[in-house]
Amino acid sequence: MTAIMTAGSAAVDEAAAGWLDTTGRRCLAEAHEFVSARAAEHFSGRSEGALAETALPEFVAGGKCLRPLFAYVGWRCGQPESPAAVRAAAALELLHCFALVQDDVMDGSPLRRGRPALHVRFARWHEEQGWAGPASRFGESAAILFGDLFLVWSEQMLRESGLAAAQLARGWRHYDLMRAELAAGQLADLVNDARALPSWDTLLDVLRRKSGNYTVRRPLEFGAALAGCGPELLAGLAEFGGLLGEAFQFRDDLLGAFGDPAVTGKPAGQDLRDRKASSVVVLAAAMAGRRQQAELAELLELATVDDEAVARWQDLIVATGARDRMGELIAERAGKALAAIDPAVVPRHAADLLAALAARCTERDR
Amino acid sequence: MTAIMTAGSAAVDEAAAGWLDTTGRRCLAEAHEFVSARAAEHFSGRSEGALAETALPEFVAGGKCLRPLFAYVGWRCGQPESPAAVRAAAALELLHCFALVQDDVMDGSPLRRGRPALHVRFARWHEEQGWAGPASRFGESAAILFGDLFLVWSEQMLRESGLAAAQLARGWRHYDLMRAELAAGQLADLVNDARALPSWDTLLDVLRRKSGNYTVRRPLEFGAALAGCGPELLAGLAEFGGLLGEAFQFRDDLLGAFGDPAVTGKPAGQDLRDRKASSVVVLAAAMAGRRQQAELAELLELATVDDEAVARWQDLIVATGARDRMGELIAERAGKALAAIDPAVVPRHAADLLAALAARCTERDR
Repeated sequence: MTAIMTAGSAAVDEAAAGWLDTTGRRCLAEAHEFVSARAAEHFSGRSEGALAETALPEFVAGGKCLRPLFAYVGWRCGQPESPAAVRAAAALELLHCFALVQDDVMDGSPLRRGRPALHVRFARWHEEQGWAGPASRFGESAAILFGDLFLVWSEQMLRESGLAAAQLARGWRHYDLMRAELAAGQLADLVNDARALPSWDTLLDVLRRKSGNYTVRRPLEFGAALAGCGPELLAGLAEFGGLLGEAFQFRDDLLGAFGDPAVTGKPAGQDLRDRKASSVVVLAAAMAGRRQQAELAELLELATVDDEAVARWQDLIVATGARDRMGELIAERAGKALAAIDPAVVPRHAADLLAALAARCTERDR
Repeated sequence: MTAIMTAGSAAVDEAAAGWLDTTGRRCLAEAHEFVSARAAEHFSGRSEGALAETALPEFVAGGKCLRPLFAYVGWRCGQPESPAAVRAAAALELLHCFALVQDDVMDGSPLRRGRPALHVRFARWHEEQGWAGPASRFGESAAILFGDLFLVWSEQMLRESGLAAAQLARGWRHYDLMRAELAAGQLADLVNDARALPSWDTLLDVLRRKSGNYTVRRPLEFGAALAGCGPELLAGLAEFGGLLGEAFQFRDDLLGAFGDPAVTGKPAGQDLRDRKASSVVVLAAAMAGRRQQAELAELLELATVDDEAVARWQDLIVATGARDRMGELIAERAGKALAAIDPAVVPRHAADLLAALAARCTERDR
């Protein structure tokens, strides 16, 4: 812990943040190039593929690239910089694109990163062609298929990254877990949406499997395993990843309720409109006093959650103290995560990068 | 050609058919075991997973296993029997499960193999739980996610099949093409559905990419590449596969218009109800005389295709001569496919199996 705290000087922070920016851009450039080549290979010259050739690479280029960064920092725990490892890490961004595209279809989300979601773009394109049949159904089907392609291309990009077969062999188990947990977690999420309100414990369980593993822990383990790191280091990263993953999701849920649409690229209070049983809502329910319980019950009964209802929801969450408490939980989880990094095991440069990534995950506005 | 024709004796036919049955069962058993283990790993003890643990392995077990059989016959062109190669071939059945589950969602198909489609089963399960929210939406989302898992598990099953890394390395290119072409072909199919009626040439182009490659050619090439077969043999299999794949799809389209529901497990004339621009319909349109053109235009304008309309469609297709012509095209393609197998290049036992598979693809009733 001491080494980490010492590392937190302004110069070190700035150097780490600069490295994250540069490396994130490198990952996105690699992913963009790979997807452009695949889209050209399969869709070049086809009417239905013209949109794919522009929309798919564009979609890739807009990401925050968090999972590749965690994977590459995991790699840097045991190995020097490597273009092949950058490509292997970037493959996780394509996995994430798969998840986003299909989630947006399932949730019926109209916007992604401030622009029309992929299924909306394909539906509009269908309309522009003047074709028969429901455009929305076409848009959803096309988006699901392109999501499938992102899933396929992620694995192909990893396999063709240029890492040695022996290095790849160490990473597959983690990669497979990540993919399967992603789908299983999304399924659990669908179930949670459908129930009235899960308990805090049930919610944490879903959240751990969906975000704690997928966003931070598995990418870190994956990168460190590719680099041949030992069990002691992997165990420390697993603990760090589990805790920071929860903090990441808590922050995500705060943004889903209170985020600024101009920054998040999503409508204000989108999670509230979607009636998501997010951590913020579940915590507010748990902390509500008797009169607040009545208000909560009323909000949950509303047929549609409009702008006024979003404002009422936000007021209620603040009044229960849940918004402030979420902030405390995020800081607490992030602090414990950093404390799990043993300076005797994790190299100094990697610990600095992990601290910078932790800050990026928990203080972000989008 | 001569050798193939000679091989067509009753005893050889029977031996080949028996081998196909046995090997198909072995492939299905391997795929069933792999999926059962993965489902238990990710869903054991979870409420939302109880259905997955029964429904997913059941779904796998019901297949015709054509693609694994083509892959394994491809393997047998260059190598002796091998349990690892059976597993590698069986991985293609999981890829096919992925395609079927998501296609049924996109097409809104209620039945698969005479039973409720997976998205219908999940929707019913949602209703039984008495949960809020639209059950059909939940069913579709869950089916898409399980389709994703089949896609992931296919690649994992192949990688963990037990084949040597050098053998696998020869197969990935064909496997990647198969996966990407499958998604790109389905997209082209969505586009074709939406247009009024494509030309015969456009239809053949889609069909070649979707079925000619996916069902016969790519699996054969994949298996033969795993076995280390040379370019001359691969070229012969590619030609055989392209031609037989078209015959397969023509037969599929005949069954989609005229198949017996008790055997196909789908409602009579399902393709006609779905307004699919199938080869049968496109050929009927091309062959229709002036009065038949008027009847065709009327049928295409109908708001819904009910039982009576299906009967009118069937009469029209028969009257144009398209049904008989499809039969001729199937026999012609299958004959040319078998003629592409050079007895100087393809081992006799593999040629016998290819002939038996060709018969199975073109004479099937389901």
